Order: sequence, then C-alpha cells, then structure tokens
Amino acid sequence: MEWKNFDQLEAYAKLDGMAPVDLKTVMAGENGAKRVEEYKVPMAGGMVYSFAAKSVDDDVLDALQALADEAALNEKYAQLYNGAVINTGEKRLVLHQLTRGQLGEEVIADGVNKREFYVSQQTRAAEFANKVHAGEIVNEAGEKFTTAVQIGIGGSDLGPRALYLSLENWARVNGTLKMDAKFISNVDPDDASAVLASIDVAHTIFVLVSKSGTTLETLTNESFVKNAIVAAGLEPSKHMVAVTSETSPLAGNPDYLDSFYMDDYIGGRYSSTSAVGGVILSLAFGPDVFARILNGAAEEDELAKNADIRKNPSMLDALIGVYERNFLGYGETAVLPYSQGLSRFPAHLQQLDMESNGKSVNRFGEPVSYETGSVIFGEPGTNGQHSFYQLLHQGTNIVPLQFIGFKKNQMENDVVIQDSTSQQKLCANVAAQIMAFACGKEAEDPNKYFAGGRPSSIIVGERLTPESLGALLAHFENKVMYQGFVWNLNSFDQEGVQLGKVLAKKVLAKDTEGALTAYSQLLGIF
Amino acid sequence: MEWKNFDQLEAYAKLDGMAPVDLKTVMAGENGAKRVEEYKVPMAGGMVYSFAAKSVDDDVLDALQALADEAALNEKYAQLYNGAVINTGEKRLVLHQLTRGQLGEEVIADGVNKREFYVSQQTRAAEFANKVHAGEIVNEAGEKFTTAVQIGIGGSDLGPRALYLSLENWARVNGTLKMDAKFISNVDPDDASAVLASIDVAHTIFVLVSKSGTTLETLTNESFVKNAIVAAGLEPSKHMVAVTSETSPLAGNPDYLDSFYMDDYIGGRYSSTSAVGGVILSLAFGPDVFARILNGAAEEDELAKNADIRKNPSMLDALIGVYERNFLGYGETAVLPYSQGLSRFPAHLQQLDMESNGKSVNRFGEPVSYETGSVIFGEPGTNGQHSFYQLLHQGTNIVPLQFIGFKKNQMENDVVIQDSTSQQKLCANVAAQIMAFACGKEAEDPNKYFAGGRPSSIIVGERLTPESLGALLAHFENKVMYQGFVWNLNSFDQEGVQLGKVLAKKVLAKDTEGALTAYSQLLGIF
Repeated sequence: MEWKNFDQLEAYAKLDGMAPVDLKTVMAGENGAKRVEEYKVPMAGGMVYSFAAKSVDDDVLDALQALADEAALNEKYAQLYNGAVINTGEKRLVLHQLTRGQLGEEVIADGVNKREFYVSQQTRAAEFANKVHAGEIVNEAGEKFTTAVQIGIGGSDLGPRALYLSLENWARVNGTLKMDAKFISNVDPDDASAVLASIDVAHTIFVLVSKSGTTLETLTNESFVKNAIVAAGLEPSKHMVAVTSETSPLAGNPDYLDSFYMDDYIGGRYSSTSAVGGVILSLAFGPDVFARILNGAAEEDELAKNADIRKNPSMLDALIGVYERNFLGYGETAVLPYSQGLSRFPAHLQQLDMESNGKSVNRFGEPVSYETGSVIFGEPGTNGQHSFYQLLHQGTNIVPLQFIGFKKNQMENDVVIQDSTSQQKLCANVAAQIMAFACGKEAEDPNKYFAGGRPSSIIVGERLTPESLGALLAHFENKVMYQGFVWNLNSFDQEGVQLGKVLAKKVLAKDTEGALTAYSQLLGIF
Repeated sequence: MEWKNFDQLEAYAKLDGMAPVDLKTVMAGENGAKRVEEYKVPMAGGMVYSFAAKSVDDDVLDALQALADEAALNEKYAQLYNGAVINTGEKRLVLHQLTRGQLGEEVIADGVNKREFYVSQQTRAAEFANKVHAGEIVNEAGEKFTTAVQIGIGGSDLGPRALYLSLENWARVNGTLKMDAKFISNVDPDDASAVLASIDVAHTIFVLVSKSGTTLETLTNESFVKNAIVAAGLEPSKHMVAVTSETSPLAGNPDYLDSFYMDDYIGGRYSSTSAVGGVILSLAFGPDVFARILNGAAEEDELAKNADIRKNPSMLDALIGVYERNFLGYGETAVLPYSQGLSRFPAHLQQLDMESNGKSVNRFGEPVSYETGSVIFGEPGTNGQHSFYQLLHQGTNIVPLQFIGFKKNQMENDVVIQDSTSQQKLCANVAAQIMAFACGKEAEDPNKYFAGGRPSSIIVGERLTPESLGALLAHFENKVMYQGFVWNLNSFDQEGVQLGKVLAKKVLAKDTEGALTAYSQLLGIF
C-alpha cells in the first residue's frame, strides 16, 4: 500500500476525462424517481445517505470505486484504527474511533491498551456524573449542582457545544436533561462575563478543557471563572474539574475536584467522543445518553470499513465531494440541517473539515498541485432559505449542498396550519429545495429563471436522537478522513494555526516592528 | 448616467490588465508601517476602515476611482435616496436609508412623505415601548412585561437578532437592558417550543413581523405562540403586536395590541432600522438606544455620498471586493469580528450580501458574463482561529478577510494573565493574524511554511456601542449596494427564493411527480 498524490493515480486521469452528468436531465421524470430509490446507502442510527441529486451516474460511481480501490482507502482506514502513525507530521497515532469501539487489533501505545484507557476515562466520567446527579458530590453548602459550564476553545468547544445543543430539547422533553450546560470559549472577556452573568455560580461545576493545559484562551477564562467563584465567597477547587492529558499541569492537580484524561492521539476536532465531550455531556444528559452517542458513532465507524462505496456512506460522500472539488471545480460546500437542534453542527463541521484538509502540502510535506479542502458553511433550514439561498439558486458560484433532515421533530409539540404540521412543512421544504436546485425552472422572465444543475445530497433520519447524532458525527469525521487520504494529506495536524499565535505573543511582549507595530497602535494595544 | 454591464466599462479593461500587487512585499518593513498609516478611511461612530493589507496600491486605487467615476456610483446612490425606482424587477423604490435620515430630496410616494412616515412609526414604537417600560401597558394581571419575543424569519430575524446580541451585554452593564429579547424563526416546531419553554409567557410581549402578513413560517409560529398563551389561561391579543405593511391582514387587526408599519420600499434584509428592528430593539433597550443606532447609521450613510473613494469607506470596501472577486478570482469572503457581541453579525451579513448580489442576470434581466456576489461566512475571533483559520492560512483557496475589532470590550470586567488583559490578547491576536495572512513565513519544514499574500481589511472602533453598531450596519449595506451598482445588478429583489416555496406547496398539496414524490416519501411526508 502506497501513499501517492491524487494526480498520480490512474483513477485521476480517468475521472478527469469523463463527461459531466447533466443533473437536470437525469433527475427529471420517472428516471429521477428511480434514482432516488436506488442512489442511497443505509447509515447507522436508522439513517440513509441519499445521493440521487449529485452529479454522478453509474459510470462516475464505477470510476470513484476504482479510485477507492487504487488509493486503498479502506486499508488506510484499517492502518489508522490499528494504530499506525497516520499523523506523520506530529508522529502520532490517530485513535478517536477507539473512544467508541474496537474496530480492529488491540492498540498498545505508551505501554497501555488504548481502548481500555479511553473506556476507563468514560467510566470515571460516568461515575463522577452519577455522583453529581445523586447529590453525592455537592457544593460547599451541601446542595446539588444544577449547571455545568465547559471552558475550552476550538475542538474543546465546537463539537461538545454542537452535540449539547443537538440533544438539549430532546432531553428536556424526555426528562433526561440532568443539568443545563453552557460554554465559554472566546478570549474576548465579554464571553466569560456574559456566561457568568447568566448562571448561579454557587450551583455550577466548571469543566476546564485543555489537552496541553497551556491554551492561553482557556487559562484566561479559567481566571475569570475563579474570580467569580471567589467573589461569591466560594472555593474554586470545589467547583472545577479538568479534562486534559496525563502529562499536563492540570492533571491530578488539587486545584480541581477531579481530572479526566485524553491523550495526544485524539485531535481536538475529533475529540467530542473522548473525555472532552464525555464529561460535559455525561453531566448534562447522564452517562447513558452519552453511551448512546458512542454506540451510534461506533456503528457508523464499522460501516466505514466497507470497501464497496455503495455500502460505505462516508467513503462515498467523500469521493463525490472530491469529484465535485477537483473535476467540477466547486470551491465551497454548504451544510444545511433541517433541524433546529443542529443549529451549531455546521460550525463544528466547519472546523472538522477546514482544519483537517485546508492544506497545500501532502503528508510528506511536498506541495500538491490540486485543490484540497473547500470552504464549509451553513445554517439550519428553513432559516437559510430566507437568507443566502438566493446565491445558491441563482448566483455565479455553484455550491454543493449537504442537506440533513428528520421525519420527526424532537419535542412533542406541533401545530396544524393550512392542513399540515410544522414538521411536514419543514420536510416538504427540504424535498422541494433538492428538486429546485437539481432541475431548476425555465421562465420567460430571465429574473425568474433557475438554471438548476446544482448538486445536493441528503441524510435522512427518523429523529435526531443520541444514536443518530453519534452516527452523523462519525460520518463526517470519516468523510473528512477519506478525503484526506485521497488528497494524500495529513488531516490530523494544524500547523496553519501556529504563526498567528507566535505573532500575537510578540505583540503582547511589544517585540514588534513595521506594520505589526502600526496595527498594534491602531488597535490601541501600544 | 447609464447602467452598463461591468465588463463594458473602460475601467474593467484597465483593471484587467494591471499586474497584481505583491502583498507580501508591500507589507514588509517600514513600507508596511507606512501603508497602515496611510491606507485608512474614517468611518462614522469613531471607527476607521483600514485597507493596508489589501492587494492594492496607488495605481489600483486610481483605477478603482476611475471605475467609481465611470460607473457614476455616487450618482446612482443619489438616485436611490432621492426616490428613483432602483428595484427595477419589482418596480419599487429603495428607501431603507430614509429610516435613519434625509439624505437628499424629500421622497413622496403613494402620496406620503416617506421620511415622515418612517419617523412616525419610530415615534409610535418609542411611545409603545415607553408605556411598556413604565407599566402603562401591562399584562392581564396588571403586571409589567419583562420579555419580548420576535417572531419572524430572514430579514425579520437575522438583522434584529444580530443587533440585539450586539448590545445585550453592553446594555446589561449600562443598566439600559429594559427587557430580555428572544427570537423564533424556523418552521421546525422545536424552535418555537424551545423558546416558549425558556420564557414566562405571562410576562412576554410577542412581536410578529411579516411585511405581507402571509409568511408561512411566521404565521405557523404565531399559532404555536397563541396556543401557549391560551394554555397559560391568557388572551393572545393582549400579548402580541404586529409589524407589517399597512395593506396586510395583520394591520390594525384587533388580534394585536397594536401594529407598526414598514412598506414595500424597505427590503427584508435592509429592514433592521425600520419598525422591523425598531419595535423589538426599543422594547429591549429603550427608544434612546435605538435612536443612537439610527444616528450611527445616518452618519455612515452621509459618508457614503462622497465621490472620492479615499473618503468613502463603503464605496472603497465595495470596489476592493470587486477587484478581488473579478480580477484576483477569489470566490469567498470571511467576516471575522473580534468581538463576542458580534457573534451573529456574520449571519446577518451572509443574508445581506448573498441575497442581494448572488445573481446571474443584470438589472435588465440579461445574463452577465462575470462573477458576482461571493460566499460570505464567519465566526467571532479568537474562536475561528482555533477552527477554520487553518484553511485560510494554508489552504488552496485564498479567502479575502474582513476583520472587525474594538479597542475596548463592552462589559467592565477583565483580568490580567501573563501581564496582559483579555482585551489586549484579543486585539493582539487580530493584529497578529493580519500580518500572518499578509506576509506569511518562510520555513525549512514545508508543513510550517505560510505563503502569505492573503488579503484582509479591518474596521477598528473604540467600543461596540449603538453608534458604532449602526455605522457598521450601514457600512455593509452601502458596500453591498455599491457592488450591485458595479455589477449592474438589482440588489433589492430575491427571485431565487421563489421556486423552492412553490415546490414546497406542491408537496404539501401532494401535487408532485417523479423525484419530488420519491423525496417526499423518503422524508416521510407521504
């Protein structure tokens, strides 16, 4: 098995020479209906990945299968979950899938069985959460904690926050919302101040999340929180836990009630199913709900092993995305969940995808001569329809669309207006949008003309539950992984974030010159 | 004055032939510092627009000035605010600037002085808000209302919501937060359910916003709210006001406590300074704060008249954006406010820009042969740095960046860690990012190499206040307007949203065939 640049593969030349599929034509009439029947792949959590409205046909799919085979995508995945050093730049294993299941061989690293390590941390987080919920761990007045606040940034914020918001209302209706959760991330002091103003500090547990224990934003926000706890006449160490690596200064530190561990083999943007998400989500929803998220993800991780792209939704989604990016020339992807619960899921995917594959050198550090990761953005539907969809329908950019929809809403309440429920309206809208984008509409008034030919896929589930949420999370992680494999990237480092950090430190040390000095003056720092 | 396609202008050919500026070179050393000193334009609200890190030089600026002159941009603006039918497709005037000031001649339409009409509605909203705050308008138990909930979607949601969030914490600290505000927008029934679960209905006023009075999402959510009011044993008409056009079924309807008016000359995405934003913001912050937003916007609107691009920040911003889009080939713009208060401002700009200029036909309905509006996305810094900045620094797309920063934070609280405050860290980061993007960094390890040459601008203000917020809002409205003028578009209609609505109605009426039927089945509607 070799790691080759994408444009050195035979499949690249083959795909490059293929005539594009006319989506407008193939999606019309009964042939379109047949495509919807046939062009779908089961996912975990009872969901289905439908790609009928993508610009592919059986010939393109065969060529994408040939690409998957030639690039040995599923073998590379097996290498990853069996513990190879896939993160070459940082010389690290990539083990986030192990937080939800044992996909292959036992992985022993640093003298430890890594699956056992991650499970042990889940168990510890579960026991801690159970004690908090049972009133065995209480505040200084002997009262129960009611709120949990995560302090973290990037992967310690976006993923866990998106997951919390995805299930908050579901849990409220189901009676499984054990504690409210809030999140502090930005170094802007107003972020911490606003969250602190909205909570009752005396009944709050703070979860400080930093793998290295040195993230400047997070330590700064910790100080904010500690000041607030002290101002309330309380002892910070009775209100805080740490989620960190075993070698960090936060580990086993008496400043915290307890500490829970991840390691260097869990990248930040892939860390939601580790203790980074596990502690806050177990506190908010209880350990059983968190375990259900893990089960959904594990089931999806298993599906991702399949070498047949028609049975492997994440690999197929990845390959269609590569086809659109490198051969159809599309530079953006919109993620459009028709589910209010997923309101911040696009922001998580934005990090996951753009931080993983927004790179210009291959895994050996050599410049690549093809496009890699695209810009990811999105808002929940139907809100987006009344906002940026104008450009998606009639703009000069063609933006591939990733819809997500559920047959049922999360909360029990609905209302019938004009003979349909809100949920039916929501689903009718996403069905309508797919067809409007694919087939467009002729019109005498050119202002009302829709060219169509705008590709989309949709993931459809019964309801947004812990299982389907876990499956969604893993689907996109595995999609990004497979695209990284095709592009021959290291999807697991993020060297592009370093330079800004270095220069910011220089500004704070007043060690600047030229334009950096001038900007510092403009911003009132000097 | 003529309306010509962009590529028919002499300035187009001139710009097309110009050698690109090497940003890395011009921003280095003392020349870079000099650029930061010189390449800036004062804005309203005490702000400044700095474009030193854009890929322009004096030659490009001269060519952009020639473009502005040849396209008669400021004359087109004058036509607009003097009441010409600028929205040609819908045959409407475009008068949102009149909600904040009288920029030119009196505009009489439908027999009414339009400035007087908008002011009268502001006065009515102010009087209503004052009565609510004073306890003269109370709930059925004679108690004060404490919360205001806006029900609206698209422009009736994104702009007002972004403005509310921008000042919520500022107002909390200043003691001007009169009422909490919340927003219901999505037709997903869980949106309304979740907001209703978070408020005390008995002490809440609902502001129903729909220009036509027929927006399906909004009427559906109104039913949700009415059900909740009735379930609380209360009378809906005592808890709701309407913001609508005078000819809508909601106008003067006894189902509402009162109704406030906008008209067809205020497009949804431009409506924040009309009654659409005025009622909810006056309730939340008091009429004086809303008036200050209007003043900031009015001052910025005046600046936008200047024919000299070096004295007209929105025109200059627009022209640089056009240069990047059409001659440098960049397809996206990231909006990156280093201010937690502006967390949803990018979502508002996403609608404003993409719905206005995401079009492929000119204002006469003829296809254009150049790129128009780009994809807009963004999250507040420093959060984005730990997320998608990887792609911005090292990805294969070059994405122009629009930074926004303030010298001071909104809330009083800050903390010193490692010899600097959080606010200093925030500002140091944005200064550092501008330079990292512009100049990059050489490195032996190609993984740590930053190519640089990635252009950005920054708007810097003292603090995010009502005045600076109003100025920001107007700046971007006027920027979008000027880009529409250059591209010869009608930036004030949105025909691209219609087809999806039509097809959704067909689904709900079960009047479908082919793939639309199949998708409806997949989504469980049929």
